[in-house]
Amino acid sequence: MSGFGPEHLPYGVFRPRGAPERASAAARDAPERASAAARDAPERASAAARDAPRAGGAPRVGVRVGDRVLDLAALAAEGLLNEDPALFARPSLNAFMAAGPEAWRRVRHELQALTAGPDAEPAAVAIDEIELLLPFEVGDYVDFYSSIDHATNVGRMFRPDAEPLLPNWRHLPVGYHGRAGTVVVSGTPIRRPQGQRSDRGADAPAFGPSTRLDIELELGFVVGVAGSQPVPVDRALDRVFGVVLLNDWSARDLQAWEYRPLGPFLAKSFATSISAWVTPLDALLDRRVPAPAQDPEPLPYLREDPWAFDLDLEVELNGTTIARTSARHLYWSAAQQLAHMTVNGAATRVGDLFATGTISGPERGQRGSLLELSWGGSDPIALRDGSTRSFLQDGDEVVLRGRAGEAIALGEVRGRIEPAG
Amino acid sequence: MSGFGPEHLPYGVFRPRGAPERASAAARDAPERASAAARDAPERASAAARDAPRAGGAPRVGVRVGDRVLDLAALAAEGLLNEDPALFARPSLNAFMAAGPEAWRRVRHELQALTAGPDAEPAAVAIDEIELLLPFEVGDYVDFYSSIDHATNVGRMFRPDAEPLLPNWRHLPVGYHGRAGTVVVSGTPIRRPQGQRSDRGADAPAFGPSTRLDIELELGFVVGVAGSQPVPVDRALDRVFGVVLLNDWSARDLQAWEYRPLGPFLAKSFATSISAWVTPLDALLDRRVPAPAQDPEPLPYLREDPWAFDLDLEVELNGTTIARTSARHLYWSAAQQLAHMTVNGAATRVGDLFATGTISGPERGQRGSLLELSWGGSDPIALRDGSTRSFLQDGDEVVLRGRAGEAIALGEVRGRIEPAG
Repeated sequence: MSGFGPEHLPYGVFRPRGAPERASAAARDAPERASAAARDAPERASAAARDAPRAGGAPRVGVRVGDRVLDLAALAAEGLLNEDPALFARPSLNAFMAAGPEAWRRVRHELQALTAGPDAEPAAVAIDEIELLLPFEVGDYVDFYSSIDHATNVGRMFRPDAEPLLPNWRHLPVGYHGRAGTVVVSGTPIRRPQGQRSDRGADAPAFGPSTRLDIELELGFVVGVAGSQPVPVDRALDRVFGVVLLNDWSARDLQAWEYRPLGPFLAKSFATSISAWVTPLDALLDRRVPAPAQDPEPLPYLREDPWAFDLDLEVELNGTTIARTSARHLYWSAAQQLAHMTVNGAATRVGDLFATGTISGPERGQRGSLLELSWGGSDPIALRDGSTRSFLQDGDEVVLRGRAGEAIALGEVRGRIEPAG
Repeated sequence: MSGFGPEHLPYGVFRPRGAPERASAAARDAPERASAAARDAPERASAAARDAPRAGGAPRVGVRVGDRVLDLAALAAEGLLNEDPALFARPSLNAFMAAGPEAWRRVRHELQALTAGPDAEPAAVAIDEIELLLPFEVGDYVDFYSSIDHATNVGRMFRPDAEPLLPNWRHLPVGYHGRAGTVVVSGTPIRRPQGQRSDRGADAPAFGPSTRLDIELELGFVVGVAGSQPVPVDRALDRVFGVVLLNDWSARDLQAWEYRPLGPFLAKSFATSISAWVTPLDALLDRRVPAPAQDPEPLPYLREDPWAFDLDLEVELNGTTIARTSARHLYWSAAQQLAHMTVNGAATRVGDLFATGTISGPERGQRGSLLELSWGGSDPIALRDGSTRSFLQDGDEVVLRGRAGEAIALGEVRGRIEPAG
């Protein structure tokens, strides 16, 4: 149950493997596991267990408990969860999120009670018997730049003769809109993007596969409450449904050439991976810790007692852990980000996603991107197999992980690079 | 019928005024017009005319013919349009767009035949008896920067000592993602945004209502075909369902402070207005004209015979026409924009919207933003009422209009500024 016990209960969207439309490798390779749930608890094989997780393979909402997933649509249909099954018999969390914070809290309490006893077991399915899908429909996706160590490192590399932080950085959480339509779930292969880059000394840009393909280790926050007014900073977390790990894949060579004056575009828009499991914000509220004072003091609409999430984060590349850092290092909080994003009156929708930006710490081993870890390619990283990396090669696999102590493991974010094509 | 005859036939989404959920000023003020359709053609008062446009006021797809709107859901239900009524009995064009280019062409031909005779009349409603809604659900919104005169003007103002165009500008259509969730339909009031700005010489940023609120005259292109591969430039227009006029409201003071290094954010994200009517691309294909050669020649994935739309555009502010320009002045074409946007493998969805960026011409009166028209505020514009403007004041109303000859009038984009609050 490590990391997925009753204190956690993250939500996702799943479909049974082996549903007619998709032959499942897991089911083929491990048939003896396929009916473990039914064997272990035959006396509780209710209608929910018999029919719901297997019927037609329609995607529905589930909650992870250890290595099993509870089918919430089945539980609600059985009356074990006192909610409308239609909230969960859907291919995204959006309807449940739109039900609002009271419903989120009520369901969480019901699930904590249910999972303490045997009643929910018939609606459980082993995690290796399901396929996990993108957990929510993304409204708008905003990416911030809120790690002071990351922004300082990037500034040092790209503007070596100037102050590393631009004048606005300490006054507002710098951010921009990314592409919502290319947010994909963990496990989705990532095709190397092509595009223009301007090699040093060249007269004209070259075109081809990115040669500086990178990751960005981030946390993402999912908005569960729509609004059309500025969100006060001290109420901002009330709007947040949950938290995902996020890898904002980045083509540094494309970015360097295209980003002036309107910001990153093709360098980021090909893919952004998120974890399949959305950790309820309620599970992380007591994982907040005080943070250092911000200097200068922010404007009133951003002012709060400084805090950060105490989440340990790591980056694994082809089996080697190449960075260990913490969300503690973030300068701007999620509450400040949401308050800033809406202070101009911009409306928010259920499913809006905003992310921290790359999370780095002050030490070399705490950096959340290859750009920083290899210092722009000048100091490649050694992997366990004896090879080195400055940026990603085809076939490389990256996994992001996060933890809040023993009790909470964020859903991992995994992605393997496929050749451009 | 000026501009809305059978050569045009733009699509929109409407709801009858006076439907129970919204008392309609038009219906109250002009009751004698409320049943004009039925009076004029009583012998054709079919079930469609009696029931559909009035039943419950549910939004549905319509097509504009002169000053009347044909209810396509009613026409299909009556069998006068040989399509599934469910494509049109919806609050957005997305289902119809997703039906694909063959369906678009077939429906356009059917409508051209229908509107030539009297059969469709019972399903028509006067345009002042309806409320027009946002015509489609926006997937991702991308804003380009494709007018060479606009980019040059902005460069001259903000970097007076440097080349006005940055090195990348002539090699790729510079663009970035905007906020899809705040795209609104013409007529929606625009609340002045608040935010941070850095006044010249100040130690710290100020916070308050934008003092440099501006417009951007643009064309928007609506993607009707989803895809996950790069779109070849010579096939790109096949993916485009239609064209809207677009006003990308901009807070120049917020933008100047926030935009480095990740581009515009709050300066743009509060609102983007589009016309209620989507002009089918098919209506504009023969309005293309050759354009000057691009220099340098673009990379192969952007290469095509240079062309532009021959669309006359104008900006009206409080009743004074302050700019007349043309889409002919654009440097990068819509086909090049879509090819560029997808060359990195970024997927597109039905309902994605991409816009040209501000359209300016070489003459002063051809500039598509107040920033350029007033040259950063140094040369205010005179209005007919004797007042002058550098940027927008509360209560100001802006209308964008566009035309392709006599036959085609793009739907207008209207917006009035409300005070911040």
